[in-house]
Amino acid sequence: MLKKNRIKDLHVKNLSQLVDPHSILHHKEDLLAYDCDGFTIHRHLPKAVVFPQNTKEVSSIVKYCNENDLPFLARGAGTGLSGGAIPLNNEVVISLVKMKRLLSVDYENRRAVVEPGFINLRLTNSISEKGYYYAPDPSSQYCCTIGGNVAENAGGAHCLKYGVTTNHILGLEVVLPNGDVIELGKQGIPDEPGYDLLGLLTGSEGTLGIVTKITVRILKNPEAKQTVLAYFDRVEDGSQAVSDIISAGIVPAALEMMDKTAIEGVEAAAFPVGHPRDIEALLLIEVDGISAGIKEQILRILDVCKKQNVREVKVAESEEERARWWANRKTGFGAMGAISPDYLVQDGVIPRSKLPQVLKQINKISEESGLLIANIFHAGDGNLHPLVLFDARKPGETEKALDAGSACLQVCAEAGGTITGEHGVGIEKKEEMRFVFNEDEIQAQTNIREVFNPKNLLNAGKLFPSPSRCAEVKKEMKKIEYF
Amino acid sequence: MLKKNRIKDLHVKNLSQLVDPHSILHHKEDLLAYDCDGFTIHRHLPKAVVFPQNTKEVSSIVKYCNENDLPFLARGAGTGLSGGAIPLNNEVVISLVKMKRLLSVDYENRRAVVEPGFINLRLTNSISEKGYYYAPDPSSQYCCTIGGNVAENAGGAHCLKYGVTTNHILGLEVVLPNGDVIELGKQGIPDEPGYDLLGLLTGSEGTLGIVTKITVRILKNPEAKQTVLAYFDRVEDGSQAVSDIISAGIVPAALEMMDKTAIEGVEAAAFPVGHPRDIEALLLIEVDGISAGIKEQILRILDVCKKQNVREVKVAESEEERARWWANRKTGFGAMGAISPDYLVQDGVIPRSKLPQVLKQINKISEESGLLIANIFHAGDGNLHPLVLFDARKPGETEKALDAGSACLQVCAEAGGTITGEHGVGIEKKEEMRFVFNEDEIQAQTNIREVFNPKNLLNAGKLFPSPSRCAEVKKEMKKIEYF
Repeated sequence: MLKKNRIKDLHVKNLSQLVDPHSILHHKEDLLAYDCDGFTIHRHLPKAVVFPQNTKEVSSIVKYCNENDLPFLARGAGTGLSGGAIPLNNEVVISLVKMKRLLSVDYENRRAVVEPGFINLRLTNSISEKGYYYAPDPSSQYCCTIGGNVAENAGGAHCLKYGVTTNHILGLEVVLPNGDVIELGKQGIPDEPGYDLLGLLTGSEGTLGIVTKITVRILKNPEAKQTVLAYFDRVEDGSQAVSDIISAGIVPAALEMMDKTAIEGVEAAAFPVGHPRDIEALLLIEVDGISAGIKEQILRILDVCKKQNVREVKVAESEEERARWWANRKTGFGAMGAISPDYLVQDGVIPRSKLPQVLKQINKISEESGLLIANIFHAGDGNLHPLVLFDARKPGETEKALDAGSACLQVCAEAGGTITGEHGVGIEKKEEMRFVFNEDEIQAQTNIREVFNPKNLLNAGKLFPSPSRCAEVKKEMKKIEYF
Repeated sequence: MLKKNRIKDLHVKNLSQLVDPHSILHHKEDLLAYDCDGFTIHRHLPKAVVFPQNTKEVSSIVKYCNENDLPFLARGAGTGLSGGAIPLNNEVVISLVKMKRLLSVDYENRRAVVEPGFINLRLTNSISEKGYYYAPDPSSQYCCTIGGNVAENAGGAHCLKYGVTTNHILGLEVVLPNGDVIELGKQGIPDEPGYDLLGLLTGSEGTLGIVTKITVRILKNPEAKQTVLAYFDRVEDGSQAVSDIISAGIVPAALEMMDKTAIEGVEAAAFPVGHPRDIEALLLIEVDGISAGIKEQILRILDVCKKQNVREVKVAESEEERARWWANRKTGFGAMGAISPDYLVQDGVIPRSKLPQVLKQINKISEESGLLIANIFHAGDGNLHPLVLFDARKPGETEKALDAGSACLQVCAEAGGTITGEHGVGIEKKEEMRFVFNEDEIQAQTNIREVFNPKNLLNAGKLFPSPSRCAEVKKEMKKIEYF
């Protein structure tokens, strides 16, 4: 970081007055680390990156940007998968990583207050000794921030039973795009009177305001947990087992599936656990709750799996074995690096009953595009993650991968589903919003953006299709034969 | 209902052309039934009441009103408790009771589509044979409509475990205040991409649009249910038992409390079950889920109650006994009629840990006002229902009751809670919104209303404090000594 007197740009100079002198980056070599997030296909340099330490600093930076018509956006750990933190318009990036304190924990009423840069997993680690945890568990939880989770309404494996981020947010302090600060749900009580602005801000992908304080719900650790691993020779049997477990009235804490290609990846990478390479699907199933009844639930799950011709099924015998199975699953996306130079992860949602048909359709897209597609996903809630494997060095292959990813989303939408479950729309899927919304429905949303963000300086060009592109994309939507 | 040729008012005449000839009321004697809802303290006659039969008719009525600057509002069964359906401005009331069809049920993906006038309990009755039910269960569920439930984000006894209405809404068809029709969550998948307009509309108390179709989540019947009734000599012991049950890691399906005055009322009314008259509090506790584990949960609950000096505790021995206990609880508000000519129900929410202190404070309000206050409420989620008993025939007593009710809400707000859990703000609590929101926070909400409802013709004068009254009410807020 360089001294203030070497700053040439007037705006950057002025911004540097608003924060600690070492809390601004503006040289190209420093800015390179901020040209993309977990969606690495688009890269754009920001104008500068500022690191405020408190709400007041955020507010003054935002006020300055607003008054001077400078585009700006907020950034957490930069692990987002849809490009929400990419500075498309040479934005001033407001990095919230220095606002990383756990402000308070109220065990009796089960809530905690954190700053937006606080790491997701750190919350559970901070309260686990007293027997509590924070439920939303994106696979990136060891490094992603809760502020980013709020922006993207992040999910995770255990959201099947416990719900995604929005179900765990009780209050937000928000800096509005004009610099004003409001508190939503300031009493930390669910279902506040008036309009549900808390729900509106959560998952708004950084386009309505910048969150500077978050009150979350914390949960008591379940008394007991049991984890099952089931190997299937046929993906149809695995899918049917998913439906049958839910139909049996069991609500597993997690119900994850991996297909053959995915297994190949995870077994070649950092946490191999010895899954057979010749099966078509595996299920990782966890139940939790009070001890009484857990055993019987496990017996029922084993029974369902057996009825669906499971090849092998086993229950984790120790916490250590369980942790190993989960590490294998949770590092699954990155593991694709072991079998492919590049990958693109998609995030469609479908009604659970359509699982077998949609997986077949994704296979077809894979065959047609000539690209391998691995599937690692939250089967219990129908949240698919097709991982399109490609080699960016080969000319045209990135475009082919993007097309294949988009085709997967179209299949999901046409099966009565949607285009994102937990990764957000960002840049990546904004044109695909047309798969699920018509002109009026997009308009109803951009009208809301205009109320909060009238100059559209905050994170512009995200979440909604470009107006000029709308008609075009609609035309481009090739009719896919679904059944 | 009278013939069209006898209609004198031009607007009413024109409106009558838009619906079936027998689907409009406009004579004073017919309109009297629509001058209030369950909040009977304010009464205002509507201009007319129209009964559309489909979305197109709703849209054309709304378009007509919008073009002719006629105030209008939607009405379901009129069971709302905060005055949300009262035609303050001589509105055209759009009654949705003729739109009462169950349109479809998708058991596999657990959702159903209903029209807004469909009765809440009828949904459960329609699907129970197949083993499913609809969770939100306001005490008025035998007659209230799901459309009204959406408007007020209705709760109910079993919302402790299952969440209020907003947690069960997957999609809405909405007629906007200009007559346009949009679909939110049209795929019926939770957590749609884009802004959460579904959450925004739910609980917006009929001020942003008129819901004409609703996709709800349906749940599989729990395999087992057990219900416990516990009598306490001291209200503090009952409150502590509530906290201890939750702390034990049990999530009861319902955890209800009644105090001495409430017990006196329910025992004098339609469903007496022989509760002792000399106890200070009773708890009605229900657990549900898969059979395995239910028994152990019950044993733990009994244990907690015993540790808190319970006088008597019993488990329902039959479905019939359980149903009797619930009928006694669910008709509790009306039962107040057996001991008082009039009552006013309030709806504050507090952090569970503040239960004993707040109940004490409410007692103090009762003493100071000279009015009895009964408490029947959802103790598990801290949702209090103080029932202020009064006699409207005595001059000044209605005002005294309103003041006492408002004071109860102030106590809740100052204890870190809010002013409504499930009944909505409506007319009744609009000035009390000041207890929890400041000027900017109200403004952020009314800005949103303006996007949807720019002419403020739809249900005006509800939900938010009158601008002119704001400063006044703030001044009026007497400082209550809370601890």
